[in-house]
Amino acid sequence: MENNKRVDEANQIAIERIQNSTPILVDVKPAINVIPGMKKNLLLCAGPPIRWSQMCEPVKAAILGAIVYEELADDLREAEQIVKREEVTFSSTHNHNAVAPMAGVISASMPVFVVKNETYGNVAYSNLNEGVGQTKTLRFGANNEKVINRLKWMREKLGPALKIIVNESKGINLKEVIAAAIRRGDECHNRNKAATDMFFQKATIVLLRSAFKREEILPVLEFILANPHFFLNMSMAASKATMNAAHGVEYSTVVTAMSTNGVQFGVRISGLGDDWFTAPAPNQDEGKLFKGFVSQDANPVFGDSYISEPAGIGAFAMAASPAIAEFVGGTPEYGLEITRQMGKITLAKHNTFRMPCLNYEGTPVGIDFRKVLQTNIMPVINTGLAHRKAGIGQIGAGIARAPKLCFEKAKVAFERKYK
Amino acid sequence: MENNKRVDEANQIAIERIQNSTPILVDVKPAINVIPGMKKNLLLCAGPPIRWSQMCEPVKAAILGAIVYEELADDLREAEQIVKREEVTFSSTHNHNAVAPMAGVISASMPVFVVKNETYGNVAYSNLNEGVGQTKTLRFGANNEKVINRLKWMREKLGPALKIIVNESKGINLKEVIAAAIRRGDECHNRNKAATDMFFQKATIVLLRSAFKREEILPVLEFILANPHFFLNMSMAASKATMNAAHGVEYSTVVTAMSTNGVQFGVRISGLGDDWFTAPAPNQDEGKLFKGFVSQDANPVFGDSYISEPAGIGAFAMAASPAIAEFVGGTPEYGLEITRQMGKITLAKHNTFRMPCLNYEGTPVGIDFRKVLQTNIMPVINTGLAHRKAGIGQIGAGIARAPKLCFEKAKVAFERKYK
Repeated sequence: MENNKRVDEANQIAIERIQNSTPILVDVKPAINVIPGMKKNLLLCAGPPIRWSQMCEPVKAAILGAIVYEELADDLREAEQIVKREEVTFSSTHNHNAVAPMAGVISASMPVFVVKNETYGNVAYSNLNEGVGQTKTLRFGANNEKVINRLKWMREKLGPALKIIVNESKGINLKEVIAAAIRRGDECHNRNKAATDMFFQKATIVLLRSAFKREEILPVLEFILANPHFFLNMSMAASKATMNAAHGVEYSTVVTAMSTNGVQFGVRISGLGDDWFTAPAPNQDEGKLFKGFVSQDANPVFGDSYISEPAGIGAFAMAASPAIAEFVGGTPEYGLEITRQMGKITLAKHNTFRMPCLNYEGTPVGIDFRKVLQTNIMPVINTGLAHRKAGIGQIGAGIARAPKLCFEKAKVAFERKYK
Repeated sequence: MENNKRVDEANQIAIERIQNSTPILVDVKPAINVIPGMKKNLLLCAGPPIRWSQMCEPVKAAILGAIVYEELADDLREAEQIVKREEVTFSSTHNHNAVAPMAGVISASMPVFVVKNETYGNVAYSNLNEGVGQTKTLRFGANNEKVINRLKWMREKLGPALKIIVNESKGINLKEVIAAAIRRGDECHNRNKAATDMFFQKATIVLLRSAFKREEILPVLEFILANPHFFLNMSMAASKATMNAAHGVEYSTVVTAMSTNGVQFGVRISGLGDDWFTAPAPNQDEGKLFKGFVSQDANPVFGDSYISEPAGIGAFAMAASPAIAEFVGGTPEYGLEITRQMGKITLAKHNTFRMPCLNYEGTPVGIDFRKVLQTNIMPVINTGLAHRKAGIGQIGAGIARAPKLCFEKAKVAFERKYK
């Protein structure tokens, strides 16, 4: 069939663009200085676009915290008034080539990672990771004074230090770091230990050689070391820079983004422009909850970190990361099984991300929404689990499946556009 | 049979001692201050005891280098005269609870890792790793000025820095580090990347918090970072402290040491005292040679690092380290096969060293010389390969098999002693 041939050719192009992408971390700068369309009173929120009234509690809490952090309000109460008076506006991170994990909010003065896809010239952005979920963080919906003060320290001390590290390194090839980390047991979504270690080493040597004061270096290095997820946001920006290069190929059925705002889960398809095909955000399929919490406490999954899976890492690379397979509630064999399943809904094996325990086979990459519907195997995503109420934070980790409805809607749109 | 029951019970005790051992790195001090029996004119040499006239070229070269380093001679020529006049004496590292890799020599002023087995109170020692084999190092038989100067820097700068790191950390639990590293793709004999990274992190934070000058910290951290084998000597001392605790159990047939001086390969058996059961040192079975070298260039294997395999790491944990399986010339599947084979000649699965890709199965540990002879499966050892001539250094890496004759001799001695 003529149309099928066109789709196959288009998908080949999309896959080539994923495989050939070279995401390089080139800078760390305040969001307002680099993110296209960023404004002082604009807040970028993870996931498909959503109105304030529809947002879930942890996302609302993160937004209020960000407003206080930006000193647009003196306290959370005033922040809420400002929102109601519509003195701030919201936009989806993805409309600005940005990504932010969990209840991810990016505000104007936050330092962001600037990741350039050297092959195709496009750029993506991500905010910085605040620390593990057990400490209260904005991305898990906490917004107390400690959270805000940490964000200010990140703006004033951490951001400039990271800028030095990246600039003095003449850029950091994130594709190489991710590939090396996968060889050392990360899947670079829920486990970023080896990748963070590699970044830590670079950070140490560069800062010690720099003009930075010793008493400023120590807290920066301690902050990075205390957070084995520190690399996550770099990984996400790398995936975003990669997947954006594969987006917009006419006739391609490749999934170029998956994301959720905690209410709606959406996917984007390469050949279908910037529309989101959405369904209610799912809860975890399986998970491991911290002591004292039950399944029902968990908010439906949220955040942009599910950009990892379309790029061939995260749950798709779970076979390479037995530790994370266990952390999300399974066994190493279960991780192998997930990776094998994902092989059935993808178009290629990654040319660079290779799994030692599978004899260096590449990770499955390039989700084809047609294959998802044909096999009825929904893409698996690794995820942190946040409490559905504001201010409590992370309560565990698990895996979830992207909702079938997203792919069914994509199919309808595809048939409408191309037939 | 009564005797068999006694052997089984004895082996159970030996295995329990291995499993319960807790090797802690407690200090870094000059050899002469801590190693029992160490003297100014004494040189400890890896492997079973051997006379100067019988030593292989790289070991002789290392000894001459050590004599110059100790300023017992002005140059290598004079060093040789000193040896001939018997103004220095030699002893096996193992007679002093010490271990040293490759052409390992420990001289009086060298700083050594002090590793205490907290469970049983015994202590083991190892020298410091000088750097990867491609740089000229004493342990690969190089002894030029650069090598000697590096050793002096290690004595004057690195040793004191390491002492601070270890002391300020209140000791470092090496069993935990090894276990974590195995989960991250090391086998802690020929691959020590993850373990070295963990040590690097500790080193960074402690030194930055200490009174050490910034300009002294940087070279120490750069030195550690440049050498992914830096942890090896700590790992070896941990294995030695562990295996010594299992040594000396009457009736036990457990192999408590394997080592070679490059001429003779020897094994020690728990129930057979301090005798070595020796055979000519083997060459590599399989290996990967650096460009420009051929098989015949390699010296028979030498060094004390084969203490790793009796302790359940190194080649015995190869399944956990696909990267090293590949480095020594095989495939990840080959690594799995080696670990499975070693399961047939060992008495237990390690309670702490667990391999993610085998669903967290413990590594095979506790070689029983009877099983070696019954199955005709010789213990595999991972090894670096040195040129047989002095001064050239490392020419590759590979695996070798402990010679059958060692175990046959042990059997004869065992029957003589216990019948």
